Amino acid sequence: MPQKSTDPLIIFMPSGRRGRVPAGTKVLDAARDLGVSIESICGGRLTCNKCRVQVEEGSFQKHGIVSRTESLSPATEEELAFLAKLDSLDCRLSCNATVQDDVLIFVPEESRGQKQIVRKAAGERVIDVKPAVRQVYIEVEEAQLGEHRGDWGRVQAALSEQWQIEARRIDLPALQRLQEALRKGNWAVTVTLWEDEVIDVKAGYQEGIYGLAVDIGSTTVAGYLCDLRTGQVLATESIMNPQVTYGEDLMSRVSYAMSHHDGLEKMNKAIIDALNRLAAGAARAAGLQARDIHELVVVGNTTMVHIFLGIDPIELGGAPFALANRDAMDIKARELGLRLHRGANVHVMPAEAGHVGADNVGVLLAEEPYRQKEIVLTVDVGTNAEIVLGNSEWMYSASSPTGPALEGAQITFGMRAAPGAIERVRIDPETREPRFRVIGDERWSDEWKLGPDAPPEAQPRHLAAGICGSGIVEVVTELFLAGIIRPDGRFEPNFRGPRAQWDGRTGAYVLATAQQSATGKPIVVTQDDVRNVQLAKAALYAGARLLMKRANIDVVDRVVLAGAFGSYIDPQHAMVLGLIPDCDLERVYAVGNAAGDGARIALLNREKRREAQEIAHWVRYIETAVDADFQEAFVAAIHLPHATDPFPHLEGILPEVREVQRRPRNEKRRKKLETGD
Amino acid sequence: MPQKSTDPLIIFMPSGRRGRVPAGTKVLDAARDLGVSIESICGGRLTCNKCRVQVEEGSFQKHGIVSRTESLSPATEEELAFLAKLDSLDCRLSCNATVQDDVLIFVPEESRGQKQIVRKAAGERVIDVKPAVRQVYIEVEEAQLGEHRGDWGRVQAALSEQWQIEARRIDLPALQRLQEALRKGNWAVTVTLWEDEVIDVKAGYQEGIYGLAVDIGSTTVAGYLCDLRTGQVLATESIMNPQVTYGEDLMSRVSYAMSHHDGLEKMNKAIIDALNRLAAGAARAAGLQARDIHELVVVGNTTMVHIFLGIDPIELGGAPFALANRDAMDIKARELGLRLHRGANVHVMPAEAGHVGADNVGVLLAEEPYRQKEIVLTVDVGTNAEIVLGNSEWMYSASSPTGPALEGAQITFGMRAAPGAIERVRIDPETREPRFRVIGDERWSDEWKLGPDAPPEAQPRHLAAGICGSGIVEVVTELFLAGIIRPDGRFEPNFRGPRAQWDGRTGAYVLATAQQSATGKPIVVTQDDVRNVQLAKAALYAGARLLMKRANIDVVDRVVLAGAFGSYIDPQHAMVLGLIPDCDLERVYAVGNAAGDGARIALLNREKRREAQEIAHWVRYIETAVDADFQEAFVAAIHLPHATDPFPHLEGILPEVREVQRRPRNEKRRKKLETGD
Repeated sequence: MPQKSTDPLIIFMPSGRRGRVPAGTKVLDAARDLGVSIESICGGRLTCNKCRVQVEEGSFQKHGIVSRTESLSPATEEELAFLAKLDSLDCRLSCNATVQDDVLIFVPEESRGQKQIVRKAAGERVIDVKPAVRQVYIEVEEAQLGEHRGDWGRVQAALSEQWQIEARRIDLPALQRLQEALRKGNWAVTVTLWEDEVIDVKAGYQEGIYGLAVDIGSTTVAGYLCDLRTGQVLATESIMNPQVTYGEDLMSRVSYAMSHHDGLEKMNKAIIDALNRLAAGAARAAGLQARDIHELVVVGNTTMVHIFLGIDPIELGGAPFALANRDAMDIKARELGLRLHRGANVHVMPAEAGHVGADNVGVLLAEEPYRQKEIVLTVDVGTNAEIVLGNSEWMYSASSPTGPALEGAQITFGMRAAPGAIERVRIDPETREPRFRVIGDERWSDEWKLGPDAPPEAQPRHLAAGICGSGIVEVVTELFLAGIIRPDGRFEPNFRGPRAQWDGRTGAYVLATAQQSATGKPIVVTQDDVRNVQLAKAALYAGARLLMKRANIDVVDRVVLAGAFGSYIDPQHAMVLGLIPDCDLERVYAVGNAAGDGARIALLNREKRREAQEIAHWVRYIETAVDADFQEAFVAAIHLPHATDPFPHLEGILPEVREVQRRPRNEKRRKKLETGD
Repeated sequence: MPQKSTDPLIIFMPSGRRGRVPAGTKVLDAARDLGVSIESICGGRLTCNKCRVQVEEGSFQKHGIVSRTESLSPATEEELAFLAKLDSLDCRLSCNATVQDDVLIFVPEESRGQKQIVRKAAGERVIDVKPAVRQVYIEVEEAQLGEHRGDWGRVQAALSEQWQIEARRIDLPALQRLQEALRKGNWAVTVTLWEDEVIDVKAGYQEGIYGLAVDIGSTTVAGYLCDLRTGQVLATESIMNPQVTYGEDLMSRVSYAMSHHDGLEKMNKAIIDALNRLAAGAARAAGLQARDIHELVVVGNTTMVHIFLGIDPIELGGAPFALANRDAMDIKARELGLRLHRGANVHVMPAEAGHVGADNVGVLLAEEPYRQKEIVLTVDVGTNAEIVLGNSEWMYSASSPTGPALEGAQITFGMRAAPGAIERVRIDPETREPRFRVIGDERWSDEWKLGPDAPPEAQPRHLAAGICGSGIVEVVTELFLAGIIRPDGRFEPNFRGPRAQWDGRTGAYVLATAQQSATGKPIVVTQDDVRNVQLAKAALYAGARLLMKRANIDVVDRVVLAGAFGSYIDPQHAMVLGLIPDCDLERVYAVGNAAGDGARIALLNREKRREAQEIAHWVRYIETAVDADFQEAFVAAIHLPHATDPFPHLEGILPEVREVQRRPRNEKRRKKLETGD
C-alpha cells in the first residue's frame, strides 16, 4: 500500500458525519470519535450482532471506487461465520473492521445506537433513546494471588477500560451475587448500570433491559412497558386505582387520610399492590417477568404521588397546599415495596405546585408548548383539570376542581369508557329524538335492529350500559342545542314527548329506551347530571379564562386536550358546551394520555428528566382556589353556552340557542355535528 | 464611639488565633472566619447554650482595659435571662454578642466545637470530632400560597442560608415525616444530616446524635456507643458472636456456608440479630434507644464482613482469596435489617486483602504506624493473626492462621476471659509447683485459704473455672522454663510428682487441684493443649519473620500487640514462648482492641475514613498461605524457644532451657517473671 500523506477519510451515512482517522482504527471507534452512534453491547467480541454496517463505497476520493476489502480490513473467518449465521454477508461488524482507506459507511436503521420513537400529536415527535439504565458486556481480569483490588474493583477497572464508564457504586444485592456471576461467566459478565451505579451483574452475555412508565391517576393507573434499548413499547396495561374504595376524588382521599389513623397506610398499600399487579401483567404480556423491569418512571397528580411515596397528603387538602417535595426523586423500588428488578430505581417526576403535579409536567414534556411560538392552551381533564397556557416566552399553569362528572362519575347512569358505554349522541332539534353510539359498535343506535326477529348481524354488539365521559358532554350539548335545556341548565318546562320524564318540576331526558338498554331499564339524563356537567365545565373554562386574563390575551392559537377524556370527547361539542375557550376548531388537538407519554419520554431519555425539572420550576402557577377572578369567571361560566368576558349573563332559552346556531363559526360546527363526525 | 481607622481586633484563647473584624460582627461569626471552632447548634437563637464564651480583656490595645460591655455589645435582656438560667452570668453567648472594640475572648473547654478524645497507646492520640452525622437547628420559611418550592425546598434553602449546608438528598422516611415536623415545630426544626443527605427532621430544638462503632470478631463482637457531638464513649458492650454455633473459626464458617444451602442466610441473620441486641443493650446502658443511633461503623475480618453484608464467603476459603469488595461501603442500616435510627448509615471500613480485613485497617488507623519513622510490628491476634510491619516509608501486611488456641479455644480446659479464668501462671522450676491468678481476684492461688474453716476474706472470690488465652500462653511458657516440657513441646518423660499425669507415654500437668477448681475436678494442661499453642505461636512468629525477610530487616523497633489477647498476655512470656520476634521488652505495647478504636475514630471523624481507604490501598499484602518461606519458618518455629533465622533445630531439653535462662535478656526477664509482674 503506498505511503499516504493524510489519514483515511471516513464518512458515515445517513448522518453525513465525516472525519479522518488513522489507518487501522476500528470503524466503531471512528464512529464514536465522530459522534455517530452505533449500537454495541459486547464491545467487539462477536456476541451482540448490534454493530453491523454496510460499505457503500471505498476509496472514493483518491483512487476511485475500489473493492470493499481494500477500504476496510478483510473480515476474519470468525466474523464471516458470524455474519453468515445472521444472514448478513453484505455487512461488516464495525467492531471488527478497521479503516484502511477512504470509505463511505452506511449505518442501517437497526444498528443506529439511539433508536427513536415517534409520537403523533400536534406534530411528530422524535425521542432519542438515552435511558438511565444501560447494559454492557465486559471481560474482567481474573482474580489472582497478590492482586487485591477485589472483584468489584476489577469490574470497575474493566468498565472504565472497555467502556469509559466510571461506575462509582454497586448496589448491595448486585454485590452479593457478583462473585458467583464472575466465576459462572468465566470472568465475562453483562453489567447493568443505573446512572453510575451497578445494579446487576449476570454471567456471560445476557441482553435485555426494560422499563415501565406509569401514570397514576385518581381513577386509572396506566403503564407502558418499554424496551430500554430500542424505546419500543412492548405492552400497555391499565387498571383501576384501587384507592377509589377510599374516596372517588382527590379531596375525599385526603379526607380519608385525615380521618383514619391508618388511612395513608391503606391507600399506600393499595397503590403499591396495584403497581405490582400492573408491572407483573405488563411483563407477562411482553413475555417477561416483573423482575426484568429495571426502572419505573412515575407521573401522577400531587396527591397520588404523595400517597405513593407514603407521605400524608393532608397538606394538599387546604391552603397553602404545600408539597412535601416539588422536585424529582430517585428511590429504590424495593424501598417502596415494589417487586421489580431487585436494583430497580423509581424516578418520580417533579411537580409544579400543590395542585399541578408530575402528570402535568409529563404532559408538558410530551407536548413541549414551551418550545412553541404559538400560544398553546393545554388542558388535561381528570377529577382535577390541569390547565397550562403559554409558549416559549412565558407559561402559566392552574388547577381547576372539575370533579369526576366529566369522567362519567357522579352521573346517574355514568360509567367508565368500556364496551356498551354511550360515547356519541345526536339529538334531532325538531323531533327531539336521540341516536347514539356505544363503545364496541361502529353503528349508530338508529341502525340497530332489536328483538328476537332481527337478524344477528343487524343486532347491536353491545346494548347501552351507561354513559361515559364523552357521552355525557355530547348529550348535554345536544340537549342544549335542541332547546331541551335552557342556558341556565334547567329543563325547558314545556319539554314534553316520549323522551321527557317529569318528577314534579324536575325534568329528565330518556337517552336510551328500556329495549336499548342492557339492564332493561331506560338510561336517563337527569337535572342533577346536567348540573354536575355545568359545574365541571364552568370550573375548567374559568381556569382557562383566568390564565388568559393573567397573560392579558383574549384568544389562544391552539388547544391541546390531554388525557383519556380529551381523546374521546368531540372538540366541537366541547366548545359549544363551553368547556374550552373559542379557538379555530382545526387547531384543537386531542393527544391521548400525554402524561403517560411524558413519563415514557423521561424513561427513555435521562436528559429529558433535567428538562422536566427545569420546566417544573419555570412555569408560573396561578392558585385558583382563592382567586376572586376565578370565582367570578366560574359563576359566569355555569350557564350554557359559555359566557365570554365580560361574562354577560344570558337569559331566555330558544332565541339564544338559535343565536348560537346562527353565529358563523357555530353554524359551521352545527353542520359538522349534523353530518356526523 | 470615636471613629476608628482600623477594625476591632479580636483574639481567641486558648488557640491564640486573632484577626480584625468589622465592628458589629458576631463573635461566633468572627470565630468562624478565624478558624476558631465554637460549638453551636441553634445558630444564634438562644436555644442550644453551646456557644458561651468569656471576655478576658476588652480594648487591651488602644484604650487599656475597659469594661466588658464596651468591647462587646451589651447583653440583651433575653440573653441575660438565658445566661442566668444557666448560672453563667460571667459568660456571653457568642451568637448574640457583637464585637464593638478590641477584645480577648476565652473559649471554655465545653464550648469548643471539635471536642477531642484521648487514647493511650504507644503515645497519646487526639482525635478531632468531625462525624459524618451532624445536627443543626433551622427556622424555615413558612409555606404560603403562590410559593411552590415545597417544604423540602424550603428546608434546603434554610440549611443553605443559615448553615451554608448544601443538602442534596432527603431520605424517604425523613421526607415522609417532614411536613408534620415543620408544623409541629412552628417552622423551627432540628435537622440531622448524614453527609449531604437529610436523614431526620424533628420539630423544634431537639439535641442528640449518637453512633456505634463495632468490631465483629469471629468469637466476640465489641461495640462502643459514642456521643457524636462530644466524641465521648457512653457505653461499651461486648457479646459472643452467635455464629460460633456454625463453626469455631473462619474456615469452618466458610465451610458451613459452602455445605448448607441456607448457611450464609443463617449466619447473616445470626450476626444481624446479635448487632441488634448489642445496639439495644448499649443504648439502654446509656439511657438511650437503638433508634437514637444515627450511624454504625463496622470493622471485622473479611469473612465476618462478607457474611455481615450477606455475601457468600466461599471465595475467601481458597486461593486466590478474592474479596467481593475491598473498598469502604456505605449502606442504609435498614437495608441490612438493622434496627437503628430509620435513616442510619452503616459505614463498612475497607479491607487490605482477602485475609487482612477492615479490623486490621482499624488497628492501623488507631496506631498509625504509617506515620512513624521507627519500624513497628503490629500484631492482632484472633483466630487469624493480622501482622503488619513497617513505617511511614513502607508497610507490609500478612495474615497467619493461628487458630483459636490463643483465645482459649481448642484447649482442654480453655475458656474465654471471664471471672474464674486462670490468666496468670508461675511454676517454680525447682519444686514444679504452680501458682496462678484468676480473673476477678487479685491474689495468687498460693495465698488462698480453702475449706470450711478458712476465714471468708481469705477465701478466693472465684475458684478456677478454666484457662483463658493469656493463661495458656503463660502456663506453656512456664512449663518450658521449668523444664517440664521439652523444646519440641513433648512432656519430659522423667517428669513425675503430684502435678504429673501420665496416660501411657502422654503427659499432662495439673495446674489447679480439685480443691482449687470450681467443678471439683483438677484443671489439667494436656499434651494436645501444648501442641495447639505451639502451632498457633509458630504461625504468628512465622508470619512476622516472613514480613521481616521481605523487608530485609532482622530486628523491629517496636511491637504493638492489639486485640483482647494482646492486652492480657504478658509480653515477656510471649517473647520467651516465641510468639513475637525479639525486641526490647520496654518497646512492646499492648493497645487493647485497637480495631475497635479504629472503628471509633472513623465514626467520629469522617476524614479518617478517607485516610483508612488510602492506607488500605497502600499497604502491601504478602500472602502466607502459599509462601514457601512462610512454610519453612512455620515448621522451624514450632519448637520452643523459638528458633531464629536460620532456624537451627534445637535438641535436648534442660541444657537448652538453662541456656535460655542464661542469656542476658532472658535472665532479666526471668527475674522479672520471678518477682511477679
